[in-house]
Amino acid sequence: MNVHDYLEAHKDAILRDVIEFASIPSISTDPQYQGEVARAARWVAQQLTAAGPLEVDIIETGGHPIVFAEWLGAPGKPTVLVYGHYDVQPPDPLEKWQTPPFSPTLRGDRLYARGVSDDKAPLLTTIKVAQAYFASEGRLPLNVKFLFEGEEEVGSPSLEGFIKEQAERLRADFVISADGAMWRADVPSLNVSTRGLAALEFSVFGPGKDLHSGRHGGGVANPLHAAARLIASLHDENGRVTVAGFYDDVEGLSLSERQAVTELPFDEAAYLAEVGSPTPYGEAGYTTLERQWHRPTLEVNGLWGGYQGEGSKTVIPSEAHAKITCRLVPRQDPKDIVQKLTRHLEAHQPEGVRLVVRVPEHSASAYRLPLEHPGLRAAQEVLRDLYGKEPLLVGVGGTVPVCETFQRHLKMDTVFFAFGVGDEDIHAPNEFFRVPRLHEGLGAWARLWERLGQDV
Amino acid sequence: MNVHDYLEAHKDAILRDVIEFASIPSISTDPQYQGEVARAARWVAQQLTAAGPLEVDIIETGGHPIVFAEWLGAPGKPTVLVYGHYDVQPPDPLEKWQTPPFSPTLRGDRLYARGVSDDKAPLLTTIKVAQAYFASEGRLPLNVKFLFEGEEEVGSPSLEGFIKEQAERLRADFVISADGAMWRADVPSLNVSTRGLAALEFSVFGPGKDLHSGRHGGGVANPLHAAARLIASLHDENGRVTVAGFYDDVEGLSLSERQAVTELPFDEAAYLAEVGSPTPYGEAGYTTLERQWHRPTLEVNGLWGGYQGEGSKTVIPSEAHAKITCRLVPRQDPKDIVQKLTRHLEAHQPEGVRLVVRVPEHSASAYRLPLEHPGLRAAQEVLRDLYGKEPLLVGVGGTVPVCETFQRHLKMDTVFFAFGVGDEDIHAPNEFFRVPRLHEGLGAWARLWERLGQDV
Repeated sequence: MNVHDYLEAHKDAILRDVIEFASIPSISTDPQYQGEVARAARWVAQQLTAAGPLEVDIIETGGHPIVFAEWLGAPGKPTVLVYGHYDVQPPDPLEKWQTPPFSPTLRGDRLYARGVSDDKAPLLTTIKVAQAYFASEGRLPLNVKFLFEGEEEVGSPSLEGFIKEQAERLRADFVISADGAMWRADVPSLNVSTRGLAALEFSVFGPGKDLHSGRHGGGVANPLHAAARLIASLHDENGRVTVAGFYDDVEGLSLSERQAVTELPFDEAAYLAEVGSPTPYGEAGYTTLERQWHRPTLEVNGLWGGYQGEGSKTVIPSEAHAKITCRLVPRQDPKDIVQKLTRHLEAHQPEGVRLVVRVPEHSASAYRLPLEHPGLRAAQEVLRDLYGKEPLLVGVGGTVPVCETFQRHLKMDTVFFAFGVGDEDIHAPNEFFRVPRLHEGLGAWARLWERLGQDV
Repeated sequence: MNVHDYLEAHKDAILRDVIEFASIPSISTDPQYQGEVARAARWVAQQLTAAGPLEVDIIETGGHPIVFAEWLGAPGKPTVLVYGHYDVQPPDPLEKWQTPPFSPTLRGDRLYARGVSDDKAPLLTTIKVAQAYFASEGRLPLNVKFLFEGEEEVGSPSLEGFIKEQAERLRADFVISADGAMWRADVPSLNVSTRGLAALEFSVFGPGKDLHSGRHGGGVANPLHAAARLIASLHDENGRVTVAGFYDDVEGLSLSERQAVTELPFDEAAYLAEVGSPTPYGEAGYTTLERQWHRPTLEVNGLWGGYQGEGSKTVIPSEAHAKITCRLVPRQDPKDIVQKLTRHLEAHQPEGVRLVVRVPEHSASAYRLPLEHPGLRAAQEVLRDLYGKEPLLVGVGGTVPVCETFQRHLKMDTVFFAFGVGDEDIHAPNEFFRVPRLHEGLGAWARLWERLGQDV
């Protein structure tokens, strides 16, 4: 039985393991779920141990543990570092889920669960391919290190320190990321850039307590008005960010880059239908794909204050709060952007309220993979063989902070080899993963390792 | 034993009844508490029945019941209609209460409970004065009708219909309101104007579901940005409402009116210390008291959307929501203001989102009591005697919708005779009532009725 026969024979068992993995609520942002995140780490370690003669280690950090494993039994062959994450986003708003987020449910060929696409099925795929190689051939076609973290959804605060400390242990020719997703379900694609992230939260404080809006209305400033004014000040009427210096380090797109994006098969009407927005919107002068992949953005992720219940409550609330994240492009420094944003908020602070800015430890620079990278070329070949057409090279609007961290500290590039699809409602209710993609991904990872092992 | 001796002898028992009354969570805005509101109505009716030979009636409405009672045994004497409300505001935010809102707690000379100042202690005062008269003299010094509603905190939606239908039953020389409050604790005052109310809620809908702000950021409009922009558009930088026509029907203050307000003993620094705001703020060109009493305002009472939990969640939320109320001055029509506000929001609707406006049934016109009203003159005399100084005539920033309703349908003016104080955190956490004011109020109501009974 070769590796592919093994994978085919075990596909139902593998799906059952994906379901078991996705039923663990490993929500890294919420301290209440710390025990569940730890449980997920142990589950991943057990899977690695069961896969074959891997050295497996659960490494405690200041936050959630890192699971590391390696097999270096192919001297003279390349070494790859496989990256993934076992933590997930919070499932809110819970009431919008058709089935509970941590009760994975098959409907048609889709498996619904929080984290199943981002990143549990893709992560487990890589372990199962190792298991298949060990079971069928007794070895892997190249040297493999696995690095699975539990803090990706909170900006990987522990990972950078770990990478710096354990540089030798992590050394490889390059990274293959099981995180990320294909652009669309109908065309194979490979991600060659990700945007960075800068985060900031602010609160506006007015009166010391909620006040009766009749008795006091007209007397003192309303923190909700102030917060709205601050947020409205962050963009101009053309959707451009107005924070001074925000675009200073942004390299404009070259004509050929714009041409390449323009030539991609992108159906804007279909995109709008998919996300449910009435029209596209964003920075004037750029196409939707350019704005999502190659232009920085500033989004308010949460805004709240005052009465949200049934009926009315006539208050001037004492507080208002906002959570903001920016997506960055290469050369923008997250710390610099946060400073500029802080200065903007301070300069625009409305009268009669007190502004407090907090900067979460949650930032990352953008990343671009060189188009001539041998790992990318190998991945292109595998996808071309599997799908019978040339994979598109696309950008990613989201952030995979470790790419830039691997590059900075270990001079290692990252090849994305992902079989989730960008429409799978990651970070939203009813996240799902296409079950056929699980099988395609298993076969493709097996071929990619084989191909990379032959390269030498 | 005369009426005053009776009240003195029973003051502890009366306080115990206030505590029992304030322990009923009669939150009219929240459908979950419908049974508790009904229980409060029955409690009030039992108090009236126990007070003496009153005809007591609990009248069902489309909403919460009205409690009505009357004693018309003084032919030739004036008839007054005593108004109050037994419903209360919601207690949120619960975590800010030092003791539970519906476990009335004495600390020093203050009784803390939701609704104790607005309006349970003042309402019960009037029943206890009737009881004292019946017990000590077998009769009241004038004819009295009691009208207690359970929907004041939701804009009295049933009351107007009731007043129209039962006009003859409610007919009196004028209304005395046990709702309202004195301006300050250290100076007696009488309210001679209240502001009206217009309410509007809106929602902004963007994508059909929460989207990943990395993947989609830059592609579609963010409803939180749109809501913030709409709210920011409602005031100019001088705190003036920018809704077209908002001030059209507002009568400017005359020089003598401004002079009268200016001469009131108002310590702005002390006011700011009380409410905890860093500076006063509001429409430029007016003093704080002018803005609170005699100028219309627009306040956002609630604003929310996206992620509000611990940590971060990088979404473009699908929805944002806001609740708005305006306080109006005489001649402004709430329906007209809501229309103008709706037109403003529609005209300013940002690109890429869908705006939905809802108009709650919650509105009222402003009201002014003629300064020569005989009921006002009697109240002035009683307070002058009780406190040894001339009561101030003040405005009220808040809304007592029934004043204008009584005026419109029954041509009856409303005299406010209130012993709560404006600093008692009504509509906020830790609402309280000053216990000595309970005793002062009992004595004063007894004197006022006596004085009005002698007028003929």
